[in-house]
Amino acid sequence: MPIITLTTDFGTRDGYVGAVKGVILAICRNTQIVDITHEVPPQDVAEGAFVLAAAAPYFPRDAIHLAVVDPGVGTARRGLVLATPVGTFVAPDNGLLTYLVERLARQQPGRSRAKPMMPVIMSVPPGCRAFVLDRPEFWRQPVSATFHGRDVFGPVAAHLAAGVAPELLGSQIGEVLCLALPKPRRRGRVIEGEVVHADAFGNLVSNIPASWLSTRVASAELGGHRVEGLSETYGAREGLVAAVGSHGYLEMAWRDGNAAARLGAKRGTPVRVTLAPT
Amino acid sequence: MPIITLTTDFGTRDGYVGAVKGVILAICRNTQIVDITHEVPPQDVAEGAFVLAAAAPYFPRDAIHLAVVDPGVGTARRGLVLATPVGTFVAPDNGLLTYLVERLARQQPGRSRAKPMMPVIMSVPPGCRAFVLDRPEFWRQPVSATFHGRDVFGPVAAHLAAGVAPELLGSQIGEVLCLALPKPRRRGRVIEGEVVHADAFGNLVSNIPASWLSTRVASAELGGHRVEGLSETYGAREGLVAAVGSHGYLEMAWRDGNAAARLGAKRGTPVRVTLAPT
Amino acid sequence: MPIITLTTDFGTRDGYVGAVKGVILAICRNTQIVDITHEVPPQDVAEGAFVLAAAAPYFPRDAIHLAVVDPGVGTARRGLVLATPVGTFVAPDNGLLTYLVERLARQQPGRSRAKPMMPVIMSVPPGCRAFVLDRPEFWRQPVSATFHGRDVFGPVAAHLAAGVAPELLGSQIGEVLCLALPKPRRRGRVIEGEVVHADAFGNLVSNIPASWLSTRVASAELGGHRVEGLSETYGAREGLVAAVGSHGYLEMAWRDGNAAARLGAKRGTPVRVTLAPT
Repeated sequence: MPIITLTTDFGTRDGYVGAVKGVILAICRNTQIVDITHEVPPQDVAEGAFVLAAAAPYFPRDAIHLAVVDPGVGTARRGLVLATPVGTFVAPDNGLLTYLVERLARQQPGRSRAKPMMPVIMSVPPGCRAFVLDRPEFWRQPVSATFHGRDVFGPVAAHLAAGVAPELLGSQIGEVLCLALPKPRRRGRVIEGEVVHADAFGNLVSNIPASWLSTRVASAELGGHRVEGLSETYGAREGLVAAVGSHGYLEMAWRDGNAAARLGAKRGTPVRVTLAPT
Repeated sequence: MPIITLTTDFGTRDGYVGAVKGVILAICRNTQIVDITHEVPPQDVAEGAFVLAAAAPYFPRDAIHLAVVDPGVGTARRGLVLATPVGTFVAPDNGLLTYLVERLARQQPGRSRAKPMMPVIMSVPPGCRAFVLDRPEFWRQPVSATFHGRDVFGPVAAHLAAGVAPELLGSQIGEVLCLALPKPRRRGRVIEGEVVHADAFGNLVSNIPASWLSTRVASAELGGHRVEGLSETYGAREGLVAAVGSHGYLEMAWRDGNAAARLGAKRGTPVRVTLAPT
Repeated sequence: MPIITLTTDFGTRDGYVGAVKGVILAICRNTQIVDITHEVPPQDVAEGAFVLAAAAPYFPRDAIHLAVVDPGVGTARRGLVLATPVGTFVAPDNGLLTYLVERLARQQPGRSRAKPMMPVIMSVPPGCRAFVLDRPEFWRQPVSATFHGRDVFGPVAAHLAAGVAPELLGSQIGEVLCLALPKPRRRGRVIEGEVVHADAFGNLVSNIPASWLSTRVASAELGGHRVEGLSETYGAREGLVAAVGSHGYLEMAWRDGNAAARLGAKRGTPVRVTLAPT
């Protein structure tokens, strides 16, 4: 059975997710449809990009990942198929694949002077192929100007599931649009990063990778709070805890509590780590 | 694999949805169960009816659609199977199939002087067959007086999925209960309708069909706000936008915002369109 | 197709649930994954235990039930497989299986003087087998200290789905940890119990079993409100209603309303029933 995952900002109150699933099953009956989330905040492309990259790589490599957070629906923004070694992605070309492209490129988009979260053009990573969706014969007709998830992206994902090759669905392109991600900086023993995701538990995921923390951490600070050293687990001490989280980055959590609420922190809040002298 | 979709007001916090799915899979193992929504506001039959009709018709025609929003559970209200050309529906006979029946009947229920959202009796549409659930041998025993989703409707949907013919599940009937939907009115160049659904983005779906807007629209008004002309997309201009939405009706949206919150609008809020002189 | 159900406190906003599903499908491709809930309040083991037991027993007996509400993740708490006549459970050994174990044991854990919701050691019920997860070759490596759902419990559930016998996944044990559940008491014609679950409708499920109510109920009281007699259904009378609910216990509901909100009641709120003189 082919697998299609869904990552959207549609919410689960309306019929939108159901309509997309119906369209998929009408094209490719025995697809296994798996929800990643439909709770991306409305039109928050950066958040959708984070969540998609946090889940999609764990699926079998032949899975198809349909992602729709699409404030520009109906405008000139392009639709994409991106075939990668970790799965095939169908999404608007608006930055929703940023974290994936960055990881696959092993280079950092927007390392230039681009402002964080501004659009930047990235080359398609090595080992990947990108196609712009320009073959309306694979879409649902007539195409609504406001619901390409149902009429364009859903049908394209379903045709992929049914075995249609990506190159039949659009013309190959060499660049895709990404968001310039905020980069951590290291000066001497001080690392300055920021929160890139606050999860439902209130845990604060930073952009400081575990590999930067191999030297002993003296302290971590966030929002005026400071904690000595790294812990192995969230339960290791009372109050604020800093640990390498399951995403592979420094996280700050509050034992049996919600760090985001307690610290008034959110995406963009600075995080500072001081390493111990070696 | 047979498909059963679920549309309920059960929410996703409790074990109720899981119990229904378990009962279905215990009767028909390889069913593909697809959630449309479980977030219908508690006991809001009209909202459930809208969402169901917005999603179900996109599924394959042999799909079974189980819908349970059931304020009258355990009372004398009947249970239904409605076999239609767009799918087979299992639901209480309380108006939850109103939008579907209206669309299939190509006639407007409650066009009479019935007050909006009051119950009216409708003939089963041509090409459809309705059955009242009166065969307890297809139910789970003992039947709880408060959870027919688990004990009556779920088992009936599962037996349909397993291949039991609808006519074995109950006695054929000629009429079903619907809600009298509010109808738009046209007087000269003015169309008066109302909001029938506010979606999770805050987009306001009206009951004014696209076909009434083939003449050029001069303006659309809602809650004291007015916008000139129709746009193709939500992103086409700043602020309030009027467009034909993906449901095929006039919608009002707020660019990059929530129109329902900004305009204080909800189901029942009047919408007025003025057509341009021809 | 094997069935794996999921019951967690992960919420549906993040990529956590998707990551677990991806890991499962990468190990056992054609698993049918069914969400029971991901909306257990964060780290609320007692609530997770209630919801799991309210749904899991309705599934086919060969279903695998993966439950993760795990405030002690990464600490010394053990992981479990519990094979029972109603399904196979994979969970941390922290009380998440309490209601199931109680039901299977037909004995009441914590009947002793243990304080309600405090941990107590229970024998594995007759007909069941328990195994402590101590075979890292069945886990995802490296194991994150903060996400055993993805790295330990998910892989173990998937290997069970793929046909690995429970005894290969860990060493057999004779006792598991449960929570001491609050017990109803009967003195003469008065039964004193408490609310054990407030559902999404605001219905208040008590711990007073239907079997204790075979004598006619004179009145039920909760939070200063009193209702005469039991009703068959929630719609049977105006205002407060007492009825035997679908869980098989006394419930109190408010007709067309939310009893929990109106009465300010929640888990732990006392419920008192007075039986009629015989």
